[in-house]
Amino acid sequence: MTNNAPGALMAAEIGEQPSVLASLLSSADAVSEVASAVRERAPRFVMLAARGTSDHAALYAKYLIETRLGLPAGLASPSSMTLYGSRPDLRDVLFLGVSQSGASPDLVDSLTVAGECGATTVAVTNNPSSDLASAAEFSVDVRAGVENAVAATKTYTAELLALYLLLGGSAADASALPDAAAATLEGGVETAAARYRFAERLVTTGRGFGYPTAREAALKLMETSYLSALAFSTADLLHGPFAMIDSGVPVIAVATPDAGGSAVAPVVSRLRESGADVLVVGEDLPVVRTGVPAELSPVLDILPLQRLARQIALDRGENPDRPRGLSKVTHTR
Amino acid sequence: MTNNAPGALMAAEIGEQPSVLASLLSSADAVSEVASAVRERAPRFVMLAARGTSDHAALYAKYLIETRLGLPAGLASPSSMTLYGSRPDLRDVLFLGVSQSGASPDLVDSLTVAGECGATTVAVTNNPSSDLASAAEFSVDVRAGVENAVAATKTYTAELLALYLLLGGSAADASALPDAAAATLEGGVETAAARYRFAERLVTTGRGFGYPTAREAALKLMETSYLSALAFSTADLLHGPFAMIDSGVPVIAVATPDAGGSAVAPVVSRLRESGADVLVVGEDLPVVRTGVPAELSPVLDILPLQRLARQIALDRGENPDRPRGLSKVTHTR
Repeated sequence: MTNNAPGALMAAEIGEQPSVLASLLSSADAVSEVASAVRERAPRFVMLAARGTSDHAALYAKYLIETRLGLPAGLASPSSMTLYGSRPDLRDVLFLGVSQSGASPDLVDSLTVAGECGATTVAVTNNPSSDLASAAEFSVDVRAGVENAVAATKTYTAELLALYLLLGGSAADASALPDAAAATLEGGVETAAARYRFAERLVTTGRGFGYPTAREAALKLMETSYLSALAFSTADLLHGPFAMIDSGVPVIAVATPDAGGSAVAPVVSRLRESGADVLVVGEDLPVVRTGVPAELSPVLDILPLQRLARQIALDRGENPDRPRGLSKVTHTR
Repeated sequence: MTNNAPGALMAAEIGEQPSVLASLLSSADAVSEVASAVRERAPRFVMLAARGTSDHAALYAKYLIETRLGLPAGLASPSSMTLYGSRPDLRDVLFLGVSQSGASPDLVDSLTVAGECGATTVAVTNNPSSDLASAAEFSVDVRAGVENAVAATKTYTAELLALYLLLGGSAADASALPDAAAATLEGGVETAAARYRFAERLVTTGRGFGYPTAREAALKLMETSYLSALAFSTADLLHGPFAMIDSGVPVIAVATPDAGGSAVAPVVSRLRESGADVLVVGEDLPVVRTGVPAELSPVLDILPLQRLARQIALDRGENPDRPRGLSKVTHTR
């Protein structure tokens, strides 16, 4: 496969993930230093700012912060500060900006304002010389290497692992991750992709640590295959969206090996009873998690879904490397 | 029209909104008392917990808190506390639970745990004797009267106004709201509904104070008309979802009369240039905002969209009062 073949870039970058994760683990000390410096500030509240794929990494971080660090955390609404001129009191607040490129002007602006308002600011990016990294007091490099496909893959899983290391996780606990990622990437997705060949709409769902994966899978499917993929927390699914699911709207459910996954199981049963077509990630689409803590499962759970999105796009004659209308860096203000 | 005619309940409850808003304004003192009590606690952070339609009211509250009160705010992930057993340090935190019924067990549990962890807890509900109201230290009754249609309408706008009054807004500033709501409800939606008769997918978008409306409109369309409606912050739209919008995927954009609306305008132009079908709420679908502060525009902007969702459902032969698979109170755990 040459680099010009449709989907070649995305396939290459998906395949690099085990080595990207291993490389980040080998330089985990740099992340630990930032983690220690942040701990000294003893933040009492965490705000996360991100867009697109990185927003799903931020959502993962939110669950880690709440469950591991025992701190309340919220996703920032950049427009409050950038459009409406809000200048909140951010003393004792840790403001975490997550961005592959580190170049989105509204993220740079909101992180800068957050710092002026008293927050401790940290940038998590794949470009240590980006504007976001320069604007932040501390910076974490996710070291994923250049990403060329428009649909982010390796920078997403690298962001997840970097956030795990930043937020109290240890490299030792994550040591089995690269091998588990490699084993997970060996599974087949062609049969599942064929099943969705003519689907126009699709619902993804997960709860707790499975929810960021559901969100990110929906985005990958939208940007590569152009299908309308809606992501819902499994708890929210029963409040309204359930009505639109019939046998013609397939569901992809993410079952993490923890309490979140256990809460998804009865909803999967209810969906199947109502005649819905449900594919469960971690069961129907295998994920190898040997030796990997449950909190790191999202790094693995997304892998077959990245490959699925790419395969569906190819089956439809699209080029997942270059989705129409999108560019790699989005200049939102 | 009898109460048994499809859509009669929803039409009646949509039509009640001007009087519901007026009634809440006339009892604004009760909300002000809670507001004063909360102010005395001098919270430094706010956490909001809600599901479904109320989650969009909570998102509106988030923008108000950030822009009016200058406090950082985040939407809680109930599963952190209810499924994963997190016990965060919530001293100096205001925890606001928003729920029409006040009966969702996971909200009651997370508000209770938040109180045990040191938070000041406030329930905003349409049922002052609900479990949520009982569990909270303070309680605000949105006084919308019994809501019978499964799709929430009047409880949503009542929640918005109650939150405005709770979070620093005054009844005097909101005095023009009931009349503006009545005038907005006089506009026609039949032509717009006819345009979407055969649409299967749809995208809604807004920024800042327009974003909660986009989210709530998408939910109303999904639960009554069963179409796949995806809501995106206009800033996020350019990160991926833009790729799936073509001339067959209509867009509904919410243009608020403020900086958020101004930021939506160039994206609407770009969408139209790319051949997309765009309907702008506040322009193509009129909203009467005479004498109403911009921050209250979301109470009005949703009105034509509630009627649109109902009309599309009727045009398709569905009964929007009783969506399949849904019940009025959702017992998520």
